[in-house]
Amino acid sequence: MSSKSGMNYAPKGKVLHVVGEGEFAFAAVGLNHGHIHGMTSGLLEAGGELTWVWDPDPAKRKEFVEKYPGVREATCEAQVLEDTATRLVASAAITSERCDLGCRVMDHEKDYLSDKAPFTTLEQVDRAREKVQATGRIWAVCYSERVQNEAAVYAGTLVKSDAIGRIVHVLGMGPHRLSPDTRPDWFYQKEKSGGILCDIGSHQIEQFLYYSGAADARVTSSRISNYKYKDRFPEFEDFGEASLLADNGATNYFRVDWFTPDGLGTWGDGRLFILGTEGYIELRKYIDVARSAEGNHVFMVNHDGEHHFGVTGQVGFPYFGELILDCLGRTDNAMSQEHTFKAAELCVRAEMMAERIE
Amino acid sequence: MSSKSGMNYAPKGKVLHVVGEGEFAFAAVGLNHGHIHGMTSGLLEAGGELTWVWDPDPAKRKEFVEKYPGVREATCEAQVLEDTATRLVASAAITSERCDLGCRVMDHEKDYLSDKAPFTTLEQVDRAREKVQATGRIWAVCYSERVQNEAAVYAGTLVKSDAIGRIVHVLGMGPHRLSPDTRPDWFYQKEKSGGILCDIGSHQIEQFLYYSGAADARVTSSRISNYKYKDRFPEFEDFGEASLLADNGATNYFRVDWFTPDGLGTWGDGRLFILGTEGYIELRKYIDVARSAEGNHVFMVNHDGEHHFGVTGQVGFPYFGELILDCLGRTDNAMSQEHTFKAAELCVRAEMMAERIE
Repeated sequence: MSSKSGMNYAPKGKVLHVVGEGEFAFAAVGLNHGHIHGMTSGLLEAGGELTWVWDPDPAKRKEFVEKYPGVREATCEAQVLEDTATRLVASAAITSERCDLGCRVMDHEKDYLSDKAPFTTLEQVDRAREKVQATGRIWAVCYSERVQNEAAVYAGTLVKSDAIGRIVHVLGMGPHRLSPDTRPDWFYQKEKSGGILCDIGSHQIEQFLYYSGAADARVTSSRISNYKYKDRFPEFEDFGEASLLADNGATNYFRVDWFTPDGLGTWGDGRLFILGTEGYIELRKYIDVARSAEGNHVFMVNHDGEHHFGVTGQVGFPYFGELILDCLGRTDNAMSQEHTFKAAELCVRAEMMAERIE
Repeated sequence: MSSKSGMNYAPKGKVLHVVGEGEFAFAAVGLNHGHIHGMTSGLLEAGGELTWVWDPDPAKRKEFVEKYPGVREATCEAQVLEDTATRLVASAAITSERCDLGCRVMDHEKDYLSDKAPFTTLEQVDRAREKVQATGRIWAVCYSERVQNEAAVYAGTLVKSDAIGRIVHVLGMGPHRLSPDTRPDWFYQKEKSGGILCDIGSHQIEQFLYYSGAADARVTSSRISNYKYKDRFPEFEDFGEASLLADNGATNYFRVDWFTPDGLGTWGDGRLFILGTEGYIELRKYIDVARSAEGNHVFMVNHDGEHHFGVTGQVGFPYFGELILDCLGRTDNAMSQEHTFKAAELCVRAEMMAERIE
């Protein structure tokens, strides 16, 4: 199942506890998107202790409890937020509700790990920035297509080691399988999901800022369309693309879509091309089409030659351990707060300014 | 050599004569770019008969005669143009001079095969359109990255057979190796070469129009930069990208650069991704990095599954035979005149409107 539908992508990382038993308690609140499983697994593998789960829907709670035996089923959200032992709340609530929940979490002196995209409007971005300023809490976002993919993690190491020179361009393709009958109504409502550039575009913009090392960027153009599902889901967007220019002169293009055909052996053929002045890196994140059902392929060409690294099981997902240590030590090694918010802000801007192709 | 530098890319096609001996005579005039070899070979393999060669530079003429024994070395351009037996003139003159030469060729009642890009200004595009209108001759352009690549040819067959549904996006990457010491001065002068989006961008735009089946398009954004060679070649552009929107709703993005690192086994890792509503096609045109030095790889994923076609030696380059038959029969099966000019016009427009990143 996890290989067939991106919404249930919950890859297994390496178990590498960064804390001892009982040192870092977290809860799950808001189970609207399957990403909550990947986020929960990531925190557990890093040594976190799962305390509570809450969602208004009993069926979702039940499924979660079956998957994570030992977690306590809360009777309301407040029960979780008021538990002083719980240090962090992880959530994959409906996208448009993630900001409000984060604010409540921080009002209860907890850190927050939101599924991407964290926001659907600039007002929410501003409110989250202010809340962090006021409370000093960490508003983390799980941009899973980078932090939960070993090829993407390894590419970061290569880029930082100057293997391909100055990064001048990042090109991302983030196709996803729709499986239209399996998705909830809110997913097709733009006000709730934020639209395609906000939703799955958020991964792409985060990747651009990360690999280019840029602190800021502007969206220079963006487009959306609903080529295939206009009649069935009028508010839906099945295609989006955007170009960005960063403050350090690096450029970005990405394209996202919901056209992954039935014949692909996984939920989406996610690709990333990082172009440097002295070489380039290509990622085949989840599959190597017609070659291997295994993902995590890194191809690098530089002046030394052509290289292929299959990194499945090699690098893990250090993000979750770093996040736990950040929460305990009040550092920001997993991802800086401004980087987290900047990616979120730019994906909302890309969506807002997008030209709609009819 | 031909595998190391794109300027000498002159792939061997299948020998498949469409005419008998002596039925189609052509000449080569203007040998400034190595592409003239690929164009000449293509016409010879399709049954053309090479009559004359002319270039003001005796060294270039000598090299050409050595490569194609039997060709007559002219003493001036007029000697070629005035030879009534010669039906077509092929040229890889300096880019900015290709239009003037084409006009002279047509004034002598001959057809013309220009290397890409055929023009560097909109004035030239207009003049060529008028000349074709006035003379009824064929102004062909050898967009070699499609018509001289078997993967690209085969992709056209797949798209036309509706294998991936409606084409909604074409994404091209056209990286090239610079080998800076081997290129003539004019290559680095923008007025003569036209700039990166005009030069190697022309392939990309032609591909977009071809695979999307669009008759017209507009450039919605474009950018150029000189990230690496600012000091040595101030007028040069080593990076370019553009987005287009076609009249049929299909979209396009391409990126071109001159950063191909020394370690790549060929002159450029040309890629093309064609996205349809029911599947997608990826081309690895000249190499399959870290897997195979052979090019012409077509990957297709649709509802039936994942497919790989290695088509080296399988499909040839039908363009040249079709062009010869077009010249003899006054048809336009190889490439319509308007398609030829539209791609040329749009690459000039992309260059003109490009934002320059410093």
